[in-house]
Amino acid sequence: MKLRFTKSVLINAINIVLKAVPSKSTMPVLECILLDASEGKISMTGNDMRFAIKTTINGTIIEEGKIAINAKLFADIVRSFPDDDEIYIKENDLNISIESGNADFNIMGIDYVEYPDVPDINRSNYVCLSQYSLKEIISQTIFSISSDETVSPQMSGEFFEVYDNRLRLVSLDGHRISMRNLVLRDNYGKVKLIIPGKTMMDISRIIPEDMDNDVYVYYDNNHVLFEYNDTIVLSRLIEGEYYKVDRMISNDYETKVVVNRRSLLSAIERSILLAKESDKKPLIFDIVDGSMEVSMKSYIGSMREDIDIDKTGKDLTIGLNPRFLIDVLRTISDEEVMIYFINSRAPIVIKDDDGLYLYLILPVNIGVK
Amino acid sequence: MKLRFTKSVLINAINIVLKAVPSKSTMPVLECILLDASEGKISMTGNDMRFAIKTTINGTIIEEGKIAINAKLFADIVRSFPDDDEIYIKENDLNISIESGNADFNIMGIDYVEYPDVPDINRSNYVCLSQYSLKEIISQTIFSISSDETVSPQMSGEFFEVYDNRLRLVSLDGHRISMRNLVLRDNYGKVKLIIPGKTMMDISRIIPEDMDNDVYVYYDNNHVLFEYNDTIVLSRLIEGEYYKVDRMISNDYETKVVVNRRSLLSAIERSILLAKESDKKPLIFDIVDGSMEVSMKSYIGSMREDIDIDKTGKDLTIGLNPRFLIDVLRTISDEEVMIYFINSRAPIVIKDDDGLYLYLILPVNIGVK
Repeated sequence: MKLRFTKSVLINAINIVLKAVPSKSTMPVLECILLDASEGKISMTGNDMRFAIKTTINGTIIEEGKIAINAKLFADIVRSFPDDDEIYIKENDLNISIESGNADFNIMGIDYVEYPDVPDINRSNYVCLSQYSLKEIISQTIFSISSDETVSPQMSGEFFEVYDNRLRLVSLDGHRISMRNLVLRDNYGKVKLIIPGKTMMDISRIIPEDMDNDVYVYYDNNHVLFEYNDTIVLSRLIEGEYYKVDRMISNDYETKVVVNRRSLLSAIERSILLAKESDKKPLIFDIVDGSMEVSMKSYIGSMREDIDIDKTGKDLTIGLNPRFLIDVLRTISDEEVMIYFINSRAPIVIKDDDGLYLYLILPVNIGVK
Repeated sequence: MKLRFTKSVLINAINIVLKAVPSKSTMPVLECILLDASEGKISMTGNDMRFAIKTTINGTIIEEGKIAINAKLFADIVRSFPDDDEIYIKENDLNISIESGNADFNIMGIDYVEYPDVPDINRSNYVCLSQYSLKEIISQTIFSISSDETVSPQMSGEFFEVYDNRLRLVSLDGHRISMRNLVLRDNYGKVKLIIPGKTMMDISRIIPEDMDNDVYVYYDNNHVLFEYNDTIVLSRLIEGEYYKVDRMISNDYETKVVVNRRSLLSAIERSILLAKESDKKPLIFDIVDGSMEVSMKSYIGSMREDIDIDKTGKDLTIGLNPRFLIDVLRTISDEEVMIYFINSRAPIVIKDDDGLYLYLILPVNIGVK
């Protein structure tokens, strides 16, 4: 093998596939990037067996070949070269030479046959949306997946549901539900996928924030494949049925509060200074006409703060996990948010009038009714 | 106590004294900031018993008082407040209230009598230099102190030596010596202080980078006190005699190399990709007329690179710790550096013609003579 690259192109491709290379593995070949220059094209692959990224890369093939290279070392060496010099990669009998300017590195590769295959999936079923929209709705829902996948595999994933031209992304963890809707350009009938949370997090990190470019989401029974620019990301799906979330959400309410999002968010952010992550101290909300008092008492100290609100319906006192509220309020961009309450033991709902988002949070029992 | 502050002034003062507050201590009072509003002035003190910072702060004293407040909580609460609102701090019977806008925090303080005193030192002996110069020469020498103060307390400090109007800062760790000289504006006779490395590091971090303002270095037999702007930093000195470094440095040489600093530095930085921090792999320098080859071989792989040089004297092969060279080359701003060699077993010296800096590094034995 003998290839020539510019540094920026090579670095860019390495950075993309690195996201799928585990930093430690019992199998050294998984700590590698597969560099494949065959059939007139050059590609790189990273694969942690649950999740694979493959990207094609511009370069000159002087001689074809295929080799697995330790990803971290490869990335470090390429990054260390001067920006302007071209980089040559040669391989002969697993000996890899990486050259640029006056510098010459020699390291051992691993035979490409040991590198795990990335399964190919049928591309007849897909959904298409903009890269920007996908990134955005993932970040607006991902925080309420459950991190414990042994308890419930479905809770560790996000529910990707399409009905005609409407996409809904849902996550839940037993204490809260997050839901975002998006109108698609085309109709796709019915699609129901449970995509691992880790995949979604990585996808939202590696996809560029691009309004004008699309990502294609292909799927079969077991896999989902995201394709964008010159890159594909393949992941297994989570099996089983997702929760019937619509049955968990009530449209009734007894109290409705309209409040400035920033004022509420910064008051809650202040309050958690008094609560260590581990002790699940509730924040107490005391809602009366025109004003909501938030207060907290812990072994560290106490705080209280008044926030102006518009209220309709009954007065109410309720305890809520402040971190759950922070997660929700940070993902909303509206200046004002609407919060719906039934009583101090029933879930609260934060939603907009246009049906773009709905967040449900269970209260903490503080002994009032 | 009742005080009023603007947020920015309060944050700034907290940030300064926080540097002397240990994040964990067996004595809760040491995790505090002492807030002292007495005799018409407001000051804050942080003190980890080896090192104390005290700064005066602008604010309105509505009622005098003195209290120790948990530093981290105090800092977090003040930072969480809106930027524009004024902040009120009240204390009554150790109950502290911190108020801003509509928010009100209540926490417990600790009686100021439990807070350790900061000893006062006589201010008759001092040296004065610009804040910028002090920061600079510390950063240019601090890297070669020894971190193990149990082996040799002197090696864990920096030698601050003044002779008339010349200041010399020296550090050494048994493998290398770093030395920077500075011409002072005034004459101070003879001063010899061994200042703890940790103090020097903190000083260089907290002093603003200001060409136009000075820092006064007061000292007695046991303490050094840095005074700048409205802040004092007090530290104990290390006892004993410093090493006779001038006797360790030879002016003879057999080979002199002039080399572009950036080319050499980037070649060495590349080479250490093949050497884990723990295995002390030497970098081999092969010096002939016009060219120096640097090479390294480790279990990870091998590298070599040619660098253009101007050489006078004999050819030479020598092994050197690449990290020691990186430390030195990063602190020099000259475009070209001069390196002096005697043979492959003798220390090398990197120095300029103006006597501003001198760095000595012991070679690694690689079995050549």
